[in-house]
Amino acid sequence: MGGHGHPYSPAELELPGFVPQRLSQGQILAPFVGTAVLAVLGAWLISGRCGGGRISKTDRLLMGWWVFTALTHIVFESPFLFTPDFLSKKNPNYFDEMFKEYSKGDSRYASRNTAVLALEVITIGLKGPASLLAVHILQFAVSLGQLYGCLLYFITAYLDGFNFWVSPFYFWAYFIGSNSSWVIIPTLIATRSWKKISAAFQAEKVKTR
Amino acid sequence: MGGHGHPYSPAELELPGFVPQRLSQGQILAPFVGTAVLAVLGAWLISGRCGGGRISKTDRLLMGWWVFTALTHIVFESPFLFTPDFLSKKNPNYFDEMFKEYSKGDSRYASRNTAVLALEVITIGLKGPASLLAVHILQFAVSLGQLYGCLLYFITAYLDGFNFWVSPFYFWAYFIGSNSSWVIIPTLIATRSWKKISAAFQAEKVKTR
Repeated sequence: MGGHGHPYSPAELELPGFVPQRLSQGQILAPFVGTAVLAVLGAWLISGRCGGGRISKTDRLLMGWWVFTALTHIVFESPFLFTPDFLSKKNPNYFDEMFKEYSKGDSRYASRNTAVLALEVITIGLKGPASLLAVHILQFAVSLGQLYGCLLYFITAYLDGFNFWVSPFYFWAYFIGSNSSWVIIPTLIATRSWKKISAAFQAEKVKTR
Repeated sequence: MGGHGHPYSPAELELPGFVPQRLSQGQILAPFVGTAVLAVLGAWLISGRCGGGRISKTDRLLMGWWVFTALTHIVFESPFLFTPDFLSKKNPNYFDEMFKEYSKGDSRYASRNTAVLALEVITIGLKGPASLLAVHILQFAVSLGQLYGCLLYFITAYLDGFNFWVSPFYFWAYFIGSNSSWVIIPTLIATRSWKKISAAFQAEKVKTR
């Protein structure tokens, strides 16, 4: 714990009324990872059973991704938006503790930085719900939104001083690591959608000739 | 001019070394509007002549829009990004004066707010060049990016206090007015692209049945 009564970086950050984290890293990560695995597995099994074998394995995996990303945006991120006092609550719940832990990787969550808040508003309000409806074109649209959001997230961090993590571990594990899925997977999906859309246009052209 | 030596809002904003604006509103707006009209007209005439009558009027108008938007992003906005000292330059050029004028509608440009800078980095680096290449799918992608950017622009302004304009005139004319094209036109283009893509998928489905 730094001289300012909190573990975050930069140390001079003022966080009045900060209540220290009680749950350990493992206690916070286990439920999150467990829910994620269950969601992907559930989507895989249900799409296999109800699809009658007509849905390709790629599409079934993609369904798992969309359920996982919707769940993260709606269930795990929205408590952050609606709990401005999560750092100072006397009886913090799981979600409050989760964002205290994540703030070790990016203290802009602890200080409620404007750009981060704005990104979360869009993520929770638009990309979360849209993920649940993601058909081909919408998959393309939402994936582009995720890429755009991640780009802004990293650029604003850079412009604001790039010193929001407690240590290199938290920089790589939280700030880079946990966000990289939202760079890699949307890139793959956007590329795939682009090809599918191009193929459809090609087919339309051939047909109307 | 406020007590802090500049005309912007909020008045307590510190802008050391501010050099007052020399060009009038008319002197700043006329070249911008003139260039825009020329660009749209040029795209219209060239696409009419070189397209051999095969390009629809809607597509020719759209070309005008993409030339205009690329021009705005690349020619008019990039000097802002690469001139961090535009407020204090002893011999300000047209672009410096232009952003002094626009700052009356959103002082976050004068104070070089992080979210605004990050949005400009993406706008100039990605959306500007992509506008010049905008074919069907890319038109959809870039329009979504413009909508996403405008949404973030307005949300960050709201979260940061919503007090960045000198008067209601500048709020409506600059902050709302000049940005509204990038809400209305991308919405129209995204809707049109969505329909075209859906039609292509439909045609592909019919064909492969």
